[in-house]
Amino acid sequence: MVKKKKINSQLVWEHAKKVIPGGTHLFSKRPELFLPSKWPTYYKKSKGCYIWDLNGKKYIDLSFMGVGTNTLGYANQFVDREVAKMLKTGNMTTLNSLDDIKLAKKLIKLHPWFDMARFTRSGGEANAVAIRIARASTKKSKVAICGYHGWHDWYLAANLKNKKNLEDGLMKGLQFSGVPKNLINTVFPFKYNDFEGLKMLIKKNPEIGIIKMEVSRNFGPENNFLKKVKNLSKKKNIILIFDECTSGFRETFGGLHKKYNIKPDICIFGKALGNGYAINAILGKKNIMKNYDNTFISSTFWTERVGPTAALATLKLMEKLKSWKKISVTGNNIKSKWEILATKYNLDIKINGLASLPSFEIIDKDWMYMKTYITQEFLKKGILAANTIFVCTHHNEKILKQYFEVLEKIFKTIAKWKQEKKNIKNLIKSPVCKAGFFRLN
Amino acid sequence: MVKKKKINSQLVWEHAKKVIPGGTHLFSKRPELFLPSKWPTYYKKSKGCYIWDLNGKKYIDLSFMGVGTNTLGYANQFVDREVAKMLKTGNMTTLNSLDDIKLAKKLIKLHPWFDMARFTRSGGEANAVAIRIARASTKKSKVAICGYHGWHDWYLAANLKNKKNLEDGLMKGLQFSGVPKNLINTVFPFKYNDFEGLKMLIKKNPEIGIIKMEVSRNFGPENNFLKKVKNLSKKKNIILIFDECTSGFRETFGGLHKKYNIKPDICIFGKALGNGYAINAILGKKNIMKNYDNTFISSTFWTERVGPTAALATLKLMEKLKSWKKISVTGNNIKSKWEILATKYNLDIKINGLASLPSFEIIDKDWMYMKTYITQEFLKKGILAANTIFVCTHHNEKILKQYFEVLEKIFKTIAKWKQEKKNIKNLIKSPVCKAGFFRLN
Repeated sequence: MVKKKKINSQLVWEHAKKVIPGGTHLFSKRPELFLPSKWPTYYKKSKGCYIWDLNGKKYIDLSFMGVGTNTLGYANQFVDREVAKMLKTGNMTTLNSLDDIKLAKKLIKLHPWFDMARFTRSGGEANAVAIRIARASTKKSKVAICGYHGWHDWYLAANLKNKKNLEDGLMKGLQFSGVPKNLINTVFPFKYNDFEGLKMLIKKNPEIGIIKMEVSRNFGPENNFLKKVKNLSKKKNIILIFDECTSGFRETFGGLHKKYNIKPDICIFGKALGNGYAINAILGKKNIMKNYDNTFISSTFWTERVGPTAALATLKLMEKLKSWKKISVTGNNIKSKWEILATKYNLDIKINGLASLPSFEIIDKDWMYMKTYITQEFLKKGILAANTIFVCTHHNEKILKQYFEVLEKIFKTIAKWKQEKKNIKNLIKSPVCKAGFFRLN
Repeated sequence: MVKKKKINSQLVWEHAKKVIPGGTHLFSKRPELFLPSKWPTYYKKSKGCYIWDLNGKKYIDLSFMGVGTNTLGYANQFVDREVAKMLKTGNMTTLNSLDDIKLAKKLIKLHPWFDMARFTRSGGEANAVAIRIARASTKKSKVAICGYHGWHDWYLAANLKNKKNLEDGLMKGLQFSGVPKNLINTVFPFKYNDFEGLKMLIKKNPEIGIIKMEVSRNFGPENNFLKKVKNLSKKKNIILIFDECTSGFRETFGGLHKKYNIKPDICIFGKALGNGYAINAILGKKNIMKNYDNTFISSTFWTERVGPTAALATLKLMEKLKSWKKISVTGNNIKSKWEILATKYNLDIKINGLASLPSFEIIDKDWMYMKTYITQEFLKKGILAANTIFVCTHHNEKILKQYFEVLEKIFKTIAKWKQEKKNIKNLIKSPVCKAGFFRLN
């Protein structure tokens, strides 16, 4: 038998960068963000929360789980079967599919304060559609933003403002060439939980007609922040848009705004909605959504059927499993175990994120080296993990036991090296991992 | 046996418009464009060039064939099997799929004057990505356009120019609320085959750094138009982008620009590329595409695997069947038969379009009524048809024979009514069909 040559995924990645600018179509799938030169980067197959790399090595995914898309696990049999069944009847024709109507009705049923829905295939698009419809609905077209809303001109324009702002944490480390300079002063970032700041921003810019934000990301609302934002938007006749691409279907059966009982005018879903299939939704109130008729928003592949079919199946299975509850329980469990372990080893830890999207950071000047070390050690044990876990329904007790056994050893070593004042950099065998981009907040 | 109640697709459509603004996500799938109140509008299943409506009635599709997406027919067994096989291994994970690299390499092999590729899931996005990269590559960010390039702000801004221009045929009949006024004078339309006009436009607007156009649509280049545009762009250091979303893979195995031997700096594919699955590609030269690194373009679902897998399978089958040749022969055949029939019945006909995307118009003040009548009569015979055919490989001689038998009767009636000076409006039993939008040219 001829021994199969081992594939060097680092070489594949180097090659990829020669034919695909950036190497991958999603910033968060760059190996440098995890473990430069060592991260597997490519998959051959996947199932549940397992991934096999190009050489057939099996890993547990306790990292990004499809960057938040697969709350029901990879290659989910139920969802895939529904898609495969549909494919036999054709996923695209000259005529329309009923799945669009069914999906619109289902999402409205889950959020009865909305009347209408539009769908796209990616999240950036969905955000751009929401902004277009909102702008078509208001005479005041400027936008106040808080959070991450994609790559389109309307949003990145916030980075054009002035040099001072660019240095002020607006997606630090990234460049924004090619965004029209004409859009300067059309978008203004505000900080989460800083209601006075938002109020001042709107006072200073009375042409702001839209507030667009994530409901919560790293931490929850304080001092009735969301309620205050809602009241302000109402008083000032501002359209309130919640971007729930990430938060949707992780903590409630639908928007996170259901938890806080704050109803926006428009809401955007994506990621988890199709359990890995490309589908995004924009839900909105009729008086706003009807302004679609006064503008032009249309795309061939928005009428392709895979996305809506997958979303309908995903919602069905989510409902059956109460997946949002399950992954939230698991995530909260992870958070408290992190806390316990950190206390045990006297590490100064900060824990963030939605219940089902927990994240930790060790407060230390060498944190990025520690993070790289964490990923390096997990990888040796067949686990893909850094400091953020997108929890899925397949992350069971057995898997978490395995995870925490490895993590305890890692924390122990880090604590020891800290105590002995040894240079943590010497623990890692690859370049240090890169920080993700900073979000506009 | 209980007789199943017949579904009234008109009622479904009315209901759809209540939950989905516009009723459908693609302008070209509105029933009003074909046969208001009578068009089946929805499909239950499809195969080859056949569609079954909600009541199970079977039609031959001799109209839009998925609005140009399905040159290999609906529910193509080979493509669908490749997708289904891939689904078993998971279409989305934290890691990347090799199909992105394979697809990039294949498309570059077919167009060796390009070095790099990016993918999106819809055509509007692909156009916006191309514009962003081009703008990031040039100091001159204004754009000259000719053709249809989607729904994004950068493009629709051309309609903001001034009131006069709006009345001057720029997507007549549509509104463009919500496009930021700041973008006025960033995009300028020019007319196809009017080289002097383009030259003048660029002379008057020296900040134009990008020319974006369809290679050909209704008619081909005259007087070396494409060659002259290419030379002008070279001389003026302007980036030339060809939008081949519609023209790609219809007349050559790749871009229509291969036929004319004019190589742009960037080229966009979509529609036929995945035979109905959502996938678009942006190909470009390295010195331009590398500027991706100076901007931020990233989206979760661009890394989903269905699109690239479907595209790889589609290209494989296209190559085997030489589908572009087959559909061009069929289309040219259709064009000449239209000509013959029109001559026979003394109808003044104008025939347009790519070989595999033929279109005709009877030159008459009542043309829209005639068009409605044509669709009405075809529908009675179980054929979806108006005056434009997106040819696919399943449109065989037998089907065309059937089509032309019906068309001959229609032309005969129209000719008779014209001759007898009877009002053609009385032939139609539904409201007259609506015109599609006008393209910026």
